[in-house]
Amino acid sequence: MARIALDVMGGDHAPVAPIAGALLALRELDPVHTLQLVGRAQLIEEQLNLLLRGEFADFAHARDRLAIIEAPDVIGMSDKPSAVVRGKQHTSMVVGLKLQSAGKSDAFVSAGNTGAQMAASTMLLKLQPGVTRPAIGTVLPTALNAVVIVDSGANVDCSGEELLQFARLGAVYAEDILDRRDPVIGLLSVGEEPEKGSAAVKEAHRYLRKSDLNFQGNIEGRDIVAGASHRGPIDVVVCDGFVGNVVLKFYEAVAPMMLSLLRKAGFTAEELDRAFRGFDYSDYGGAPLLGVRGVSIISHGNSTPRAIKNAILVALRAVESHMTEHVGRRLELATRGRA
Amino acid sequence: MARIALDVMGGDHAPVAPIAGALLALRELDPVHTLQLVGRAQLIEEQLNLLLRGEFADFAHARDRLAIIEAPDVIGMSDKPSAVVRGKQHTSMVVGLKLQSAGKSDAFVSAGNTGAQMAASTMLLKLQPGVTRPAIGTVLPTALNAVVIVDSGANVDCSGEELLQFARLGAVYAEDILDRRDPVIGLLSVGEEPEKGSAAVKEAHRYLRKSDLNFQGNIEGRDIVAGASHRGPIDVVVCDGFVGNVVLKFYEAVAPMMLSLLRKAGFTAEELDRAFRGFDYSDYGGAPLLGVRGVSIISHGNSTPRAIKNAILVALRAVESHMTEHVGRRLELATRGRA
Repeated sequence: MARIALDVMGGDHAPVAPIAGALLALRELDPVHTLQLVGRAQLIEEQLNLLLRGEFADFAHARDRLAIIEAPDVIGMSDKPSAVVRGKQHTSMVVGLKLQSAGKSDAFVSAGNTGAQMAASTMLLKLQPGVTRPAIGTVLPTALNAVVIVDSGANVDCSGEELLQFARLGAVYAEDILDRRDPVIGLLSVGEEPEKGSAAVKEAHRYLRKSDLNFQGNIEGRDIVAGASHRGPIDVVVCDGFVGNVVLKFYEAVAPMMLSLLRKAGFTAEELDRAFRGFDYSDYGGAPLLGVRGVSIISHGNSTPRAIKNAILVALRAVESHMTEHVGRRLELATRGRA
Repeated sequence: MARIALDVMGGDHAPVAPIAGALLALRELDPVHTLQLVGRAQLIEEQLNLLLRGEFADFAHARDRLAIIEAPDVIGMSDKPSAVVRGKQHTSMVVGLKLQSAGKSDAFVSAGNTGAQMAASTMLLKLQPGVTRPAIGTVLPTALNAVVIVDSGANVDCSGEELLQFARLGAVYAEDILDRRDPVIGLLSVGEEPEKGSAAVKEAHRYLRKSDLNFQGNIEGRDIVAGASHRGPIDVVVCDGFVGNVVLKFYEAVAPMMLSLLRKAGFTAEELDRAFRGFDYSDYGGAPLLGVRGVSIISHGNSTPRAIKNAILVALRAVESHMTEHVGRRLELATRGRA
């Protein structure tokens, strides 16, 4: 059984989207699992009652699998990450993550301020041994299978050594969450030849070649979309968080733009839904912060209830596969291998 | 009148695609302009005769506006850029660019080895005063107007100062080729706040703020697709060549992938062509190498005759708008401004 804490105050559509997402998740989860709704207790109680009397009227028994945890303070989307660490101590983020560090919760999910979530997760859950910076692993749909891109936004200037760490973190993610065996790692660059790329990427290429990872070599922008290079399928795309963030935001915007062109050309929403099934980002819900000793899932600020539900399912998957311990073992092995 | 040299030996479909592209271009160009076909003269003569007897049978008079320039050596797509400089001296690239440096040609277009074209252009045309590295400016279709992205692949590790140079080069390009007045510059980053981004991007942000350019601030991946941020439309996207290359290759692959999904869902090619009119990359043809003292247009290796034709039109536009002199004046002004 897993206990998953949800930041009810985070995201553009809080508190309704997180609470509705929690109810959607409970519908799918085995009844042994429980959710902890963290935020302003009175507000949560009110919204929950509204939903249980309205859209979720058939689902009043879900109430037993929900705990409400009081957290009076709120972190704004524009608050600096340092605010969460030094400032407000009773925010839903700090309270939710402290539940986990105190052993009273197994995972934390938030659609709130990403920088604050990273800072609070690092501070309260601590980093895995050998990890210098946590990274975000985001799943992207491709023409083939989905790939996980690490880092998709946590770290902007990265060394070759850090890119190697991202590859290790991504490999565990691909094994535990995407069910890939011996995941194939692609290093994002501007050409497939080892001598192409920035100084950090060239350095990472050398480290990856010597590592125990299933490294395919450099890949290019087009290979992300294909989910494969001409050498075969890819499971993990490794890049720094600057490039990863640009690609992610770019990708998120391309599909809606093309859909709008198609709508203008007279195609119906139903026709398009059918064509692009499997291409909805909310299918993938949440991106784990990798490298911390615990489970902290970052959801998009504009998450819908469906996206929140999927983030909760990712959290459960991470708990059940013991991803945290798995990352720890892999990093320990890597360190020993070098000793 | 302009004399435009075309590398007939460059690209995946050489020599047929360049020669057919030249004929397509002559159909559209004012008859005062001439083209110089550079490569193995006998091969060119043969292919040209085939086309003029077949597909272009109605267009035999075009022959008068075509000069054939002998260049016996060929640069392979995998040859190192240094090979063109130190090695083969009679390649179509070197011969074509030497025509320009000798005042016998006004522009050069190639779909061949990009690294070699950059090296040869820098060596033979020389850099503009104050430019430390040439950059590639590529036009991307967006939901709004097309934007030019600089640098789209020439330079992988860039300083803030170099990003500022790219902004100046891109501004001239947007004015001369895209007809934008006082072009709006967006600096690609991971958030709109000035303190977001890599060290080089943060430095570039400070330089751009103080510059005479119409700087809108940081933009994000999604704003490229939109052709605008929430602060308004963008004309020029500034980034290093690593990010630019990844974004470009990513974008080029997304549209075909989505089209293939739509085809699988039963949409016809005709329906889709209608919807995506204006989204064909070959519409934009060629990307000028900015910062050299002359016109050198880089075409995609897999350019079709239509793409080559459009690259020739871009070359003509650059010649007629005196883009090279315009870049020179703008850079000189910028240097004086700082003195």
